[in-house]
Amino acid sequence: MSKVTCGVAVSLDGFVAGENMTLEKPMGDMTENILHRWMFEEPEKHEAELATLTSAGAFIMGRNMFGPKNLQNDPEWKGWWGDNPPYHGPVFVLSYSEREPITMEGGTTFTFVTDGIEEAFRLAKEAAGDKDIAISGGANTINQYLAAGLIDELWLHIAPAFVGKGQRLFLDMPEGLHLKPVEARTTELVTHIKYSVDNTHVH
Amino acid sequence: MSKVTCGVAVSLDGFVAGENMTLEKPMGDMTENILHRWMFEEPEKHEAELATLTSAGAFIMGRNMFGPKNLQNDPEWKGWWGDNPPYHGPVFVLSYSEREPITMEGGTTFTFVTDGIEEAFRLAKEAAGDKDIAISGGANTINQYLAAGLIDELWLHIAPAFVGKGQRLFLDMPEGLHLKPVEARTTELVTHIKYSVDNTHVH
Repeated sequence: MSKVTCGVAVSLDGFVAGENMTLEKPMGDMTENILHRWMFEEPEKHEAELATLTSAGAFIMGRNMFGPKNLQNDPEWKGWWGDNPPYHGPVFVLSYSEREPITMEGGTTFTFVTDGIEEAFRLAKEAAGDKDIAISGGANTINQYLAAGLIDELWLHIAPAFVGKGQRLFLDMPEGLHLKPVEARTTELVTHIKYSVDNTHVH
Repeated sequence: MSKVTCGVAVSLDGFVAGENMTLEKPMGDMTENILHRWMFEEPEKHEAELATLTSAGAFIMGRNMFGPKNLQNDPEWKGWWGDNPPYHGPVFVLSYSEREPITMEGGTTFTFVTDGIEEAFRLAKEAAGDKDIAISGGANTINQYLAAGLIDELWLHIAPAFVGKGQRLFLDMPEGLHLKPVEARTTELVTHIKYSVDNTHVH
């Protein structure tokens, strides 16, 4: 059955990115790659987890994951991922401003949604068909979808690092949201915990 | 070799206790036992982790772990744990006010230290001999000992629950503090991650 997944790299102190995200510092103020060393230095140890980040039938991301604040609406800006982004499918970007959809190489399209998270969800569901939907980030977008009871499976990738200030995961979670850990494993660079989410009491 | 351990139950959003800790609510404002269900409901699944909380040769705790603010200095107050506390050894309580040591049944003593965390550490080391020292909590005490580079082994017991506001773990961690995950496993009620701490660059 089609489900809604979310995989997110997070620091021990609960941050997904630092403050002041810019073109030069996509992750904001933090030691470079501190949350993602596992992806770059030992990808072969994390094939399943990496696959879940890009294997869905449709994706939803926040505007700050798509681009730095001053470029999000620049017609020349087409995301961080080059001409052939790793999504290879429809990506819905939560936006404040209207913008024409962008078609990239390899099947990725970016569609800008200004009507909020429920509308982006409806569009993603339609686009995904019987495949999964992935909530790609950042923290604010994940928090909103968790709070709305729309995520079924959450993978935390906990990097043994501290960020100190920035984009915090798990702000304002509703009382009825229940997570059940189903798997945990670790390497020296990251600890993966997979949760199934019980949204029964959120709706 | 003798080492300094710390085991702490923490919520997914990074809290060790809620706000407003009182006699009636030792853990402050949160659903009762939400971080400790694993201890009460399935102790047999967590024998090793539970043992590390009380097996050290000496213990250090903050004053708010010893008692609620209005009772910490009350001569009648002897901690939360009844006549025979589970420590069975010397416990050093970080305090603002002088207070005579208390001898409990079963070998637990409470000694009140007003000269700061380094002095409490020195006393605990002396008392522990070749046994381990355990930093028992709460969040503020653990944060201080981590920041000082004095903890060698940290066990996080992550409960799949949210607290929202309260006593936050991992505030103000220094840049040189490096944690290396060495073990992770989960049940439905808690995920244990054991870290070895590299303090080389903290001192």
